[in-house]
Amino acid sequence: MKIGIVFGGKSFEHEISIVSAIAMKKVLKAELVYIFCDYNRDFYLIPTDKINSKRFSSGEYKKDKKLTLKNGGFFQKSMMSEKRVEFDVALNISHGADGEDGKIASLLDFFEIPFIGPRNEASTISCNKLFTKIYAREFGVKTLDYKTLEKSSSRDIELKYPVIIKPTRLGSSIGISIVKSKEELDYALDVAFEFDTQVLIEPFIKGIKEYNLAGCKTNEYKFSIVEEPQKDEFLDFDKKYLDFSRTKRVNEADLSSVMVEKMRDTFKKLYEPSFAGSLIRCDFFVLDDEVYINEINSVPGSMANYLFDDFDKIISDLTNFLPIATIVPAQYKYINSIQAAKGK
Amino acid sequence: MKIGIVFGGKSFEHEISIVSAIAMKKVLKAELVYIFCDYNRDFYLIPTDKINSKRFSSGEYKKDKKLTLKNGGFFQKSMMSEKRVEFDVALNISHGADGEDGKIASLLDFFEIPFIGPRNEASTISCNKLFTKIYAREFGVKTLDYKTLEKSSSRDIELKYPVIIKPTRLGSSIGISIVKSKEELDYALDVAFEFDTQVLIEPFIKGIKEYNLAGCKTNEYKFSIVEEPQKDEFLDFDKKYLDFSRTKRVNEADLSSVMVEKMRDTFKKLYEPSFAGSLIRCDFFVLDDEVYINEINSVPGSMANYLFDDFDKIISDLTNFLPIATIVPAQYKYINSIQAAKGK
Repeated sequence: MKIGIVFGGKSFEHEISIVSAIAMKKVLKAELVYIFCDYNRDFYLIPTDKINSKRFSSGEYKKDKKLTLKNGGFFQKSMMSEKRVEFDVALNISHGADGEDGKIASLLDFFEIPFIGPRNEASTISCNKLFTKIYAREFGVKTLDYKTLEKSSSRDIELKYPVIIKPTRLGSSIGISIVKSKEELDYALDVAFEFDTQVLIEPFIKGIKEYNLAGCKTNEYKFSIVEEPQKDEFLDFDKKYLDFSRTKRVNEADLSSVMVEKMRDTFKKLYEPSFAGSLIRCDFFVLDDEVYINEINSVPGSMANYLFDDFDKIISDLTNFLPIATIVPAQYKYINSIQAAKGK
Repeated sequence: MKIGIVFGGKSFEHEISIVSAIAMKKVLKAELVYIFCDYNRDFYLIPTDKINSKRFSSGEYKKDKKLTLKNGGFFQKSMMSEKRVEFDVALNISHGADGEDGKIASLLDFFEIPFIGPRNEASTISCNKLFTKIYAREFGVKTLDYKTLEKSSSRDIELKYPVIIKPTRLGSSIGISIVKSKEELDYALDVAFEFDTQVLIEPFIKGIKEYNLAGCKTNEYKFSIVEEPQKDEFLDFDKKYLDFSRTKRVNEADLSSVMVEKMRDTFKKLYEPSFAGSLIRCDFFVLDDEVYINEINSVPGSMANYLFDDFDKIISDLTNFLPIATIVPAQYKYINSIQAAKGK
């Protein structure tokens, strides 16, 4: 099998996408082709044997083959014609904007390139923290309470401190603050509103248990082990950055089989309606033995490979269970019937 | 001003998009450039003076200039180089799949082409009838009750007839049936499941009042008049098809100013969070003096031009108030700092 690793994008998480993409070389046995989306949203074919982070930071990648997108794939110009970059499936590993907000998903879908990753609908749900909550609740999954605040709204609000402030639409801890008292609120809001016009305010529960579970659905659900991520108060961007290069299997959290089953059930409720075709990581909270969804990572760091026993097999299995587009007959039934009626 | 009309798409509503696009010639004073997306998702530049529905149904458009998409716009090949199709703003008038599900929106957004139309988030909300409901409720807007049913689920369900069955993700009345008794249920579900793996079941309230209100936000909200659409039980596809070619101003519904104000308030609650940059039509129900949202049309038929006094001005005003993308600095801060630490 040949996999097209699609990474980069115009995003605050551009760099960690590069790190994730490079990690794939260590964990996937399949042949890889690297398709890089730079900050200008130009695509380049990066030679697999020459990939390293400096190629991007130095701008050296600009000497690599530039690609254009059209129906059926990514194409490179040769002397007289165009040549398609061949692969069996694309793996979208662009984090944050572009990769997780549905733009790259739409591009791949529109140009009929089979890919692993969240589709448009799944992207909207997972990249907007408010939508994650209302979606989760609709499908019977608990979430922490929340308030939303618009940039233009009054900041004179009643809150029970400590709270955590998050821009509604960004991932990877960017713009997030813990606010312990009213005096700290203004600054935290200023920071968050740098990144979005809306913020989400949640209670900050010190020492709340956090667990990660990754998985996908092929002919059946395939789950990773459950990990209890290491954290201080919460993962900041620098720590997450390092986290994205993980390629070693981690240790399983010490949980009862009943609790693991509860998490798997919760995962299924979230995955089933909209996430077909993607490998996601659900970040759960556990409070009084109840499972709450915190975040759905629709393009998790290094694809959460370190949580699986046989990551390579999961990816190749998933390739065979991608969602199939509705067949649209190319017909002009109405126009033809009107023209017939007009005698044209 | 020059407007790029983007229309067509791989969709059951491909033909009505053509009709809508042609209607724009009659109602817009601006210079128009027509960019057609055919059933194969190839783009063509259609000469404005030669546009008519037969050009598409006959396949004649294939002799027109083919376009490719890249950063900054649509491009046509000339002898030695590429030439960008020039316009000030694109108007997305592709209905249904591609145009209203976020794919074309993502393409335009990704390639940084300014456009009027729903963005990705707005598309997901409006093209999925279940999401419309949970979004509306979150923002304090009433919806009719509903049940969902998956294709794989048991059909042995308790319902209070009559009900209306709708595929969750399609527009323009396709696959919708009114079911008056249990005996009719199976067939209606078969029809709906042709188009989606999930259906929405709502009470069918005979004679419920339906009203349409279109609008957008520029420096302030601009509203159309409220229309009470003509209908039998509900608009079927053929009637809607004709409806999309409307270019004449219709009559205002006979409503109290209090009720009109209520509808405008409801419109704002729905528009504000996610619909910036688009001109939408909200289809409301009124029951016991309360306003319920039925559907948000994020690319309404012929852009609901027939509801506005000065449609041309609305479009040119909206062009000046399109959402601005977050600025992402093109930097390699983390990669550089790691390389520095490694002494590279």
